[in-house]
Amino acid sequence: MIAEIIAVGSEMLTPYRQDTNSLYLTERLNESGIGVAFKTIVGDNLDHLTSAARTAIQRADIAVFMGGLGPTQDDLTREAVAAALGIELKRDHNLVAEMYKRFAERRIQMPENNSQQADILQGAVVLPNAKGTAPGQWLETVVDGKARIIALLPGPPHELQAMWESECAPRLREKVPPAAIASRILKVAMMGESAVDQRAAPIYKKHPNVETTVLAGQGQVELHLRATAPTRDEAQAAVDQLAGELEDEFDDAVFSAQGESLEEIVSYYLQMRNVKLAVAESCTGGMIAERITTVPGSSRSFLGGAVVYSNQLKTLFADIPPLMIEAHGAVSKEVAVALAENIRELCNADIGVGVTGIAGPGGGTEEKPVGLVYVAVTNGHKQDVVQRRFFGDRERVRRWTSQLALDMVRRMLM
Amino acid sequence: MIAEIIAVGSEMLTPYRQDTNSLYLTERLNESGIGVAFKTIVGDNLDHLTSAARTAIQRADIAVFMGGLGPTQDDLTREAVAAALGIELKRDHNLVAEMYKRFAERRIQMPENNSQQADILQGAVVLPNAKGTAPGQWLETVVDGKARIIALLPGPPHELQAMWESECAPRLREKVPPAAIASRILKVAMMGESAVDQRAAPIYKKHPNVETTVLAGQGQVELHLRATAPTRDEAQAAVDQLAGELEDEFDDAVFSAQGESLEEIVSYYLQMRNVKLAVAESCTGGMIAERITTVPGSSRSFLGGAVVYSNQLKTLFADIPPLMIEAHGAVSKEVAVALAENIRELCNADIGVGVTGIAGPGGGTEEKPVGLVYVAVTNGHKQDVVQRRFFGDRERVRRWTSQLALDMVRRMLM
Repeated sequence: MIAEIIAVGSEMLTPYRQDTNSLYLTERLNESGIGVAFKTIVGDNLDHLTSAARTAIQRADIAVFMGGLGPTQDDLTREAVAAALGIELKRDHNLVAEMYKRFAERRIQMPENNSQQADILQGAVVLPNAKGTAPGQWLETVVDGKARIIALLPGPPHELQAMWESECAPRLREKVPPAAIASRILKVAMMGESAVDQRAAPIYKKHPNVETTVLAGQGQVELHLRATAPTRDEAQAAVDQLAGELEDEFDDAVFSAQGESLEEIVSYYLQMRNVKLAVAESCTGGMIAERITTVPGSSRSFLGGAVVYSNQLKTLFADIPPLMIEAHGAVSKEVAVALAENIRELCNADIGVGVTGIAGPGGGTEEKPVGLVYVAVTNGHKQDVVQRRFFGDRERVRRWTSQLALDMVRRMLM
Repeated sequence: MIAEIIAVGSEMLTPYRQDTNSLYLTERLNESGIGVAFKTIVGDNLDHLTSAARTAIQRADIAVFMGGLGPTQDDLTREAVAAALGIELKRDHNLVAEMYKRFAERRIQMPENNSQQADILQGAVVLPNAKGTAPGQWLETVVDGKARIIALLPGPPHELQAMWESECAPRLREKVPPAAIASRILKVAMMGESAVDQRAAPIYKKHPNVETTVLAGQGQVELHLRATAPTRDEAQAAVDQLAGELEDEFDDAVFSAQGESLEEIVSYYLQMRNVKLAVAESCTGGMIAERITTVPGSSRSFLGGAVVYSNQLKTLFADIPPLMIEAHGAVSKEVAVALAENIRELCNADIGVGVTGIAGPGGGTEEKPVGLVYVAVTNGHKQDVVQRRFFGDRERVRRWTSQLALDMVRRMLM
């Protein structure tokens, strides 16, 4: 059984935008034991879209369309798939009524063109959209004597993903024989890709039954492990065995053994140990706070802190003596440590973090070049401070710095 | 004249890897006045690749294949394109001799399978590869009475790009009447996609010579305009004319007329007006500060601020009286206004921003549901405060709230 993913939207045929939904969807399809044989990207053009739909329906058992389900005149996926199949669209009046109700609840008048979202392929099931207005569609049909599954999903990633989990995955499980694929994602902080691979390769090569992919991110390297076996238990055992050996090799550099993000892990440890955190950030400009507060429930352990971007605010919010800045510079070990210690005390937190550095592209000197950062973490008894020089652009320096700070908090909590 | 780009390689059908060459190639094709109508990604499978080649040759004037030209058994592009066209491959013995010579110079014996790289489509021109071993191919032919250009290019980006510039671009200039494409991106803040389209459609429909795409982001809608004309000036004039009419319609809701992000625009206005900004964020947890400091040079106008996630920090860093929180709740208009006023005064800033709300998923009540936010912006004379209820998950609420706050700052600066 093979699948084709069709991403719909003219913006993805410009030099500026790319389909990324298909990565998520490929992973989900693979988990169901289905390989993706084709991906097609097509614009908001009825002829082109109909041609792409016709091709996909002919060559793939499962055709998943993403995007083009909205209320605008550009949203043509419904129409194109109907044309490719030679069937009619029927307007679902219950769905239209629901839409009117939804708009009324928000005290907004529904624009007329919104009702085209209720045009349904003959024989298709409507998939409710928990995160947006455009409903999806699921059609099981026969084309030229061959069984076909056709799914129409919305383009925005959070809508697509929610709809896949709740509506599509269960339907697919009924149609496709259960495949036994198990996977794990290990994440290693603050190491380069080749350094990780050099130590990991001798281990994963001894497990040819597990497919291992090494993937570099910003401030982390991910090891994706995946095994196929006659049963789920066997697949899981193969993956777990290799994951265990890799965790032994990398020891506490592995921060995640189930794919969690670093901020999720830090939040989890903070809550488990009932520890309160406060941060004083200069060059990261709020990124550390922002990342931690991404995690639901982080308010139980994250108090907040200060974005001390200017020197004046370093003094105002974190009691940094102007004389210290004069003597050592704002980007210095002394200031980082004082930021961490002072923010901890001022906020009555258990752990304090202080960050200062030069994110660039301007502001660097011979002595203190762009990319130089100091990160300090303290719990009142123990104090860690690290000097690093990161290379690359502003975003990369800031991202790696926030990663370093979160990893230092994690290590202090272990 | 339309093009299809076909990226060949099974790794791009996994959840971990993506085609990126097509972004480069799209830009180059657009510069030659050629739009990309389809992109196809297909694996190293002869049947699938032949099917993709057949489809592309049938529906596009120009089909550019990237990848699958190497010496291994997985490299099947030549074979598949020959099969799709129903023509033969002929081994170019001069090319084979050159390869032997190249290997001899490096004192390596050439593996036998390398010579398949010299298998040339009947009638094709060989494109030398200045950066690698696999030569490209360029075929101008007629299929079903229609003129077709077929290019076979290597997958590694630096090889592909060098070959395009030196071999393909000049050939294309001879075949394609000179045309130029101009584009503009307008961005509208804090409106829904259908509301924007309802007002924009009557305008852009009067300009059928400009292709307009409406694209919803988080807290913004983008209007992508693109025109093709015989000269660059004519294309630019067509796009500018429509952009002007759309700007008149949406007035100051248009925050960007050249594709800039909202944080870039806010940073630009702050610096132009020499205005200092400070923020006090609760539910956005540092996102506003983080977005502003993404912009290089933002330190000249952004002082910093406080992430007042806990009530205790609202009092500590923004002088919010505990009695005010008791009387109105932390999520209230009163607290938002006090955060903005106090952070402005404390930091000696010109503009102060205060944000409080319930990002969810927990923490909502009947009276104050998840998604309720208050944003206040003050310059000491004028004070704006907005209550909104955003729908969706935690990330969406936070993102829209930061967008609202930045847009309010922008409006105060205008």
